[in-house]
Amino acid sequence: MMRSDADFMKEAYAEAQKGLEEGGLPIGAILVRDGEIIGRGHNQRVQKADPILHGEMACMQNAGRQASYKGTVMYTTLSPCMMCTGTIIQFGVPRVVVGESVNFKGYQDVLALAGIEVKDLHDPACIDMMGDFIRHHPGLWNEDIGK
Amino acid sequence: MMRSDADFMKEAYAEAQKGLEEGGLPIGAILVRDGEIIGRGHNQRVQKADPILHGEMACMQNAGRQASYKGTVMYTTLSPCMMCTGTIIQFGVPRVVVGESVNFKGYQDVLALAGIEVKDLHDPACIDMMGDFIRHHPGLWNEDIGK
Repeated sequence: MMRSDADFMKEAYAEAQKGLEEGGLPIGAILVRDGEIIGRGHNQRVQKADPILHGEMACMQNAGRQASYKGTVMYTTLSPCMMCTGTIIQFGVPRVVVGESVNFKGYQDVLALAGIEVKDLHDPACIDMMGDFIRHHPGLWNEDIGK
Repeated sequence: MMRSDADFMKEAYAEAQKGLEEGGLPIGAILVRDGEIIGRGHNQRVQKADPILHGEMACMQNAGRQASYKGTVMYTTLSPCMMCTGTIIQFGVPRVVVGESVNFKGYQDVLALAGIEVKDLHDPACIDMMGDFIRHHPGLWNEDIGK
């Protein structure tokens, strides 16, 4: 049975929750091809003192070397920043499903301009998780997006 | 004495050479603030089987968490791809010095549109190093840029 976008988003959400439990930013992502999860990760700024490991980047790292990203879908709990947007464009991930864009608008317009299919689930669970974190840790959030 | 852009590019070139000696792609970068090198790195696709560690990304990782990138300059031996361009824009690195753009045009136009100062040194040593590598390892090069 085909898993739905909402179902795969739960996997990205579970990654974000892992990050939260570790004391980090709750942003998670998975990479799927043909219904199989081939990569997963969550933001590691705090845990590894690593500014480049946003959820989407950790996920791409975890997927490892790929000859091609044809047919892949990136699921991410939060609308991608410009680093993650550039990465998705460079490697040619053709479809991106976003949990929410209320807490961070991101660059869905840039993805679309590059010919990438974008779907925003406006997921209340993702909105609540990120909104709570930003309210309690505004400094960490601003550092994470370079503000 | 202030070090020149050409002098700092030699440090990025040395990083690229390290990558070559390790059997990896010869692309290196350094991050400088107030004349001090605060980060350095080289492409690690082969060495760590990591697709996101381009030279510029490894350099940002090595610089670690920064409250701000004001006053920093990124030196990179090769014109940045869209992943590295997005990263430079997201974190607000205000100036980028590129070794060469003959072997890969990159996205200097996108950086400039985002208000970032870009200088291309058209450095013959960088051009030769990358050109030689691409001739001998076209498959690895294409994989690195997602082609």
